[in-house]
Amino acid sequence: MVNINSVVIATGTHGNEFTGIYLGKKFEKFPNIIQRSSFETRVFLSNPKAFAAARRYIDKDLNRCFAKADLQNPQLASYEDILAKNIYYLLKEESKNQQQVLIDLHSSTANMQLTIILKSQHPFLLQLAAELSAINPDVRICYSQPIKESNYLCSISELGFTIEVGPVAQAVLNAELFQKTEALIYQVLDYIESYNQGVSKEQNRTLTFYQYTEVIDYPRNEDGEIQAMIHPQLQFRDYEPLNPGEPIFLTFDGNAIAYQGTSTVYPIFINEAAYYEKGIAMCLTQKKTLEI
Amino acid sequence: MVNINSVVIATGTHGNEFTGIYLGKKFEKFPNIIQRSSFETRVFLSNPKAFAAARRYIDKDLNRCFAKADLQNPQLASYEDILAKNIYYLLKEESKNQQQVLIDLHSSTANMQLTIILKSQHPFLLQLAAELSAINPDVRICYSQPIKESNYLCSISELGFTIEVGPVAQAVLNAELFQKTEALIYQVLDYIESYNQGVSKEQNRTLTFYQYTEVIDYPRNEDGEIQAMIHPQLQFRDYEPLNPGEPIFLTFDGNAIAYQGTSTVYPIFINEAAYYEKGIAMCLTQKKTLEI
Repeated sequence: MVNINSVVIATGTHGNEFTGIYLGKKFEKFPNIIQRSSFETRVFLSNPKAFAAARRYIDKDLNRCFAKADLQNPQLASYEDILAKNIYYLLKEESKNQQQVLIDLHSSTANMQLTIILKSQHPFLLQLAAELSAINPDVRICYSQPIKESNYLCSISELGFTIEVGPVAQAVLNAELFQKTEALIYQVLDYIESYNQGVSKEQNRTLTFYQYTEVIDYPRNEDGEIQAMIHPQLQFRDYEPLNPGEPIFLTFDGNAIAYQGTSTVYPIFINEAAYYEKGIAMCLTQKKTLEI
Repeated sequence: MVNINSVVIATGTHGNEFTGIYLGKKFEKFPNIIQRSSFETRVFLSNPKAFAAARRYIDKDLNRCFAKADLQNPQLASYEDILAKNIYYLLKEESKNQQQVLIDLHSSTANMQLTIILKSQHPFLLQLAAELSAINPDVRICYSQPIKESNYLCSISELGFTIEVGPVAQAVLNAELFQKTEALIYQVLDYIESYNQGVSKEQNRTLTFYQYTEVIDYPRNEDGEIQAMIHPQLQFRDYEPLNPGEPIFLTFDGNAIAYQGTSTVYPIFINEAAYYEKGIAMCLTQKKTLEI
């Protein structure tokens, strides 16, 4: 693969995820800290209007607006539909003669630590994931194989990925998590610099990653109202093993509901605020390893 | 004072504070659990439209719309202004020939534990506060002396108060906090029952409470953008002593900013999400005791 020419850091794809947004403001104020000798780095705030309102989005979730068919559909004209088309053509145009890495910075109310979500198993991304896992104990790698075409912002680039940090409430800054996310960005940039300079370590490595298998919704009544909460024993236990028979929900009248699966899974995005409306109480993953 | 005839539990005065809202739904489903022999209890959801949108409010903060002058001002016609007038006249009408207790249930991203906020030092409220403090180790009592007339929902009733529970992200349920809040409500109802039956303990007691003194805003630039975060050493340390010279903020470029006061204070509402727009990074209080 040719060298990386450009890194784009997208922030505020969700307007109430402040960690990435304020990190982006810092990078714009002190551009030297994200510059490396072999490539250009720039930041952009995806959804300024949602940020001004401290809301995830104005009309619909921007980070579900990037399916090719939707981008080409002129009937889709909500604020975020138009914004997505804008961002898509801007980045596509910009990356025409470039090898571009696209990082989309998110935060979560779940205990995601420093999660890198890959949508493809491109060798460059796997090498990057292995390097980050090796040097940063808070890093977790997730792989979400798109069932159909991805509609995420990071899918604009072949070398795009998402970073999810947490736990942190929406519209809040947590200084510790801010600093951890900042350090992670520098590790990514430094890896790309080494890669371009041909000094990246190509030794055999075992990459541990978590592959999405399914999502679990809250128990709901016929009106769609939730009838239970995440069980206290599961709250903030993202990436820990969950075994059949262990409690996952607690109903409002105090009854535990157990996980009904047949094998151990690793739940993530447990109690993510923005997923209540999506019908997702948690995402289940399988823990896997890959020799790269 | 005459007996209490009625208790009203307001939930969802902020539509993204789910703890009270879902607790209210439970109480409506199982009304017996909030009934006591000597008074009626009912629940109402203050801002259903904001709850449906999982937002704090639609147009403006409902819990700042209850100043008498504003309620009488026909020019104030935003969604929440109208809603406030509605709620006010409904509750006033209902309580005409009743001694009514009004509990407004809130949650916070700050580590408020189970905070009771009093707007007056009515003897009944002080006795209740002392009783709850004595039997529940998570209870904290705050006293906010209104500089001018209060604009909070709970001010509709002479016997109104606010409960703030946290830390919990907006638009999320935390099962442990849900259960603690539920238990607290039962303790309040049981106290009122004892009071009505004349069996409440009238012994001398020392009540510890935290009195608001001032609010501190984030450091901001000339455009009003925040330039620092709550310092990691202060995050989630609500109700702990803060001494002059101890760090309260961390700038984005990594410098600590110390508390400049001259005496020990007890910060609360540290890093409350909804207060970023209000210019409040934390509220300072003084710890006091009162013999009652």
